[in-house]
Amino acid sequence: MPFPTRLQHCSTCGAAVQYRVPADDTRERAVCPACSAIHYQNPLNVVGTLPVWEADGRVLLCRRAIEPRHGLWTLPAGFMELGETCAEGAARETAEEAGADIEMGPLYALIDVVRVGQVHLFYRARLRSTTFDPGPESLEARLFSEDEVPWDEIAFRTTRETLQRYFEDRRAGRPFDFFSLALQ
Amino acid sequence: MPFPTRLQHCSTCGAAVQYRVPADDTRERAVCPACSAIHYQNPLNVVGTLPVWEADGRVLLCRRAIEPRHGLWTLPAGFMELGETCAEGAARETAEEAGADIEMGPLYALIDVVRVGQVHLFYRARLRSTTFDPGPESLEARLFSEDEVPWDEIAFRTTRETLQRYFEDRRAGRPFDFFSLALQ
Repeated sequence: MPFPTRLQHCSTCGAAVQYRVPADDTRERAVCPACSAIHYQNPLNVVGTLPVWEADGRVLLCRRAIEPRHGLWTLPAGFMELGETCAEGAARETAEEAGADIEMGPLYALIDVVRVGQVHLFYRARLRSTTFDPGPESLEARLFSEDEVPWDEIAFRTTRETLQRYFEDRRAGRPFDFFSLALQ
Repeated sequence: MPFPTRLQHCSTCGAAVQYRVPADDTRERAVCPACSAIHYQNPLNVVGTLPVWEADGRVLLCRRAIEPRHGLWTLPAGFMELGETCAEGAARETAEEAGADIEMGPLYALIDVVRVGQVHLFYRARLRSTTFDPGPESLEARLFSEDEVPWDEIAFRTTRETLQRYFEDRRAGRPFDFFSLALQ
């Protein structure tokens, strides 16, 4: 997902927009010379889970059936939608991508991905079953211990960082406290 | 800030859009019949701080010089911008709205405001000075103890919830641990 592309036309009236700094603002925005609408572009949230089978600490990953990063492994996650909370979005993505039966836990990670204008939020989740039903966006969904994780085939840095932190916390016997991180 | 309004025109080519469920999707999106672009609308982040003068626990609030809620009091906060982290955005808004000299702390609150499609994130911040320089978006900026807070003149529920939680934590002698909350 690249940094949001510049807008060409006004989504209110269809006229060609101009980029300029509106009055009382400090940044360039897409401004409509016809209807005066100002169109903002802001970072988006990607919400997902870190689903753990607590009996042995293994983590659920999904192998992507879609671009970008087709064929690589990821924690279940996707863009937050209107009408849902962050946690509801994370649970929805886990159902859609892995068909996993989970009990949602607290927020574990907030990772800024500045270069692409995203904030990734991962919630802890307790798996109630080891039976999965991956949806059309996943080629497969399976559990991995730390030794089994395909570290060279992880789709996104935020998945890698979250997995590394989880396994570190687990090895150290630490509680899985919330952490935040900024990636450029 | 109302729930995002529906798009009328394609921001890529200017043609009138149609709302329908695209292939491989489950929700209605604004789809362009001319150039096939799909336009998504997603929740936005509002980022701010809970700035505390630690000597006595007073909190910095700003009185709004702009709509909505002109004349009412708020924690310094605003929409997160592209090119910054959540914490950077929170610090920027605190500088813009209050001209406060702060040391940023950890994330304190994540509050879903589902009805308006927003996620509000408040960071703890330690004030280094009690001299403020409110910008054009604020009528004034000043410190309040719990007894002094103008509870009937608070601009936003997320400010109210965050202040209440902070003063509860403080009275109870609890650490100011991260909390999350969903408002409909």
